[in-house]
Amino acid sequence: MARLVDVTDVNDPRLADFRDLRDVDLRVSLEGEHGLFLAEGAKVVRRAAEAGFTPRAFLLQPKWVDGLADVLAASDAPAYVLGEKQIAEVAGFHLHRGALASFDRKPLPDLGTLLAKPGKLRIAVLEDLVDHGNVGLIFRNAAALAVDAVVLTERTADPLYRRASKTSMGNVYSMPWTRARGMEDILRALRAADVVPVALTLADDAITLDELAAMRHERLAFVFGTEGAGVHKKTEQQVDHRVLIPMEPGVDSLNVAAATAVTFYATR
Amino acid sequence: MARLVDVTDVNDPRLADFRDLRDVDLRVSLEGEHGLFLAEGAKVVRRAAEAGFTPRAFLLQPKWVDGLADVLAASDAPAYVLGEKQIAEVAGFHLHRGALASFDRKPLPDLGTLLAKPGKLRIAVLEDLVDHGNVGLIFRNAAALAVDAVVLTERTADPLYRRASKTSMGNVYSMPWTRARGMEDILRALRAADVVPVALTLADDAITLDELAAMRHERLAFVFGTEGAGVHKKTEQQVDHRVLIPMEPGVDSLNVAAATAVTFYATR
Repeated sequence: MARLVDVTDVNDPRLADFRDLRDVDLRVSLEGEHGLFLAEGAKVVRRAAEAGFTPRAFLLQPKWVDGLADVLAASDAPAYVLGEKQIAEVAGFHLHRGALASFDRKPLPDLGTLLAKPGKLRIAVLEDLVDHGNVGLIFRNAAALAVDAVVLTERTADPLYRRASKTSMGNVYSMPWTRARGMEDILRALRAADVVPVALTLADDAITLDELAAMRHERLAFVFGTEGAGVHKKTEQQVDHRVLIPMEPGVDSLNVAAATAVTFYATR
Repeated sequence: MARLVDVTDVNDPRLADFRDLRDVDLRVSLEGEHGLFLAEGAKVVRRAAEAGFTPRAFLLQPKWVDGLADVLAASDAPAYVLGEKQIAEVAGFHLHRGALASFDRKPLPDLGTLLAKPGKLRIAVLEDLVDHGNVGLIFRNAAALAVDAVVLTERTADPLYRRASKTSMGNVYSMPWTRARGMEDILRALRAADVVPVALTLADDAITLDELAAMRHERLAFVFGTEGAGVHKKTEQQVDHRVLIPMEPGVDSLNVAAATAVTFYATR
């Protein structure tokens, strides 16, 4: 059972995990260095615990203690209880959902292990997607629409970062994922595992998503590119198919999260 | 040609259109009352002008004057030029894209007029969607995926509000839309125009989206419900089909913007 600790001083050093949540640079350095991540909101906190991550500490408004009683009961971590205003002072802004928890990260699985499942396989590859909100939404789409795992390049935003886990509704914790050094390594691993890599793109020689679906590939990996420029030219040339979601002329492409939903649905 | 006006005082009353952009209550009241809306970012500003809205005023960092030269040339509105820091003082926060313009609203079209187009028709109905970001994303999806018009209930968020127009990439200005009093009026108008209303839902008796697509209805209206609870029970009972996007068990439903992308794509 987590120890409930009433905190009186917002500068209490035991609250270090929860400080200055909007200072992205600080958080990225802290969360990488100390191997922790932060979950916000009772639902997301619960999802992280249910997915087997070990809580380091909780920071809760009194009203959230009951709702998370079972999660607290299953943990030995301290649960710091603090008023709404004081939590805002620690976090650096007002939280709509005054329930936070920090968790230890786990080592990421091998790319080869993620691809080892025999038979039908659907992989999403995120190439240099830097927006945490988009990464979270894509994990949510992937979980809902039968994708087996997500693979990230080095520059893609951290799925366990607070904003990503929030937009994913906590699906980042249960969806298998890993990070690889670059597209070369990813493409090599995909081919070794008999997975057909395709890139979502606006290239002139692209086939349509319906044409791809009609091919009924058993094992597919979809590469989605960065929010602005899309998939890198080199990657486009190396995949087996460039694939286009047909759109109205004169309209910007779908945002990348919407494009993933359409792609996963059409080829599931 | 817009008059370029160098402003020296951030409290200049001529900047009223651009003040306190994050004060949602103030803005909603100001923008409704004075029949204006605000566009943020050079691209979105340009889209509003190209869609035929009349600019009231521009507020620009010096560096944006050249990029919007053609838009300014076509307008008689004043263009207030101000430094980055001063614009942040007026707007109440730091803008990533220091180009703003206010425009006059236009009267909304009749619902009947929107539905009058003969032949194939695709309508999105947004029932009480309160999140501006979602509304904007849905307009972007609608524009990209061949939807003809969007119909909003009274409580649905304003598509011309800054955050919505931004996530729509300016597609709110060119996509035909209107607002109706309630679902009763909307359903009556749809049936009168031979449009089949369906609701996206998780109801037990729902058909799948693929089953709907296979029916090849020529004229379809999709009702999407509020972010939390979905389509109202009463609406569910009144539409011709309840329609489900099949998802993995145990996963939350797609967010509503992703659901629209999948729906528009599967039935286009």
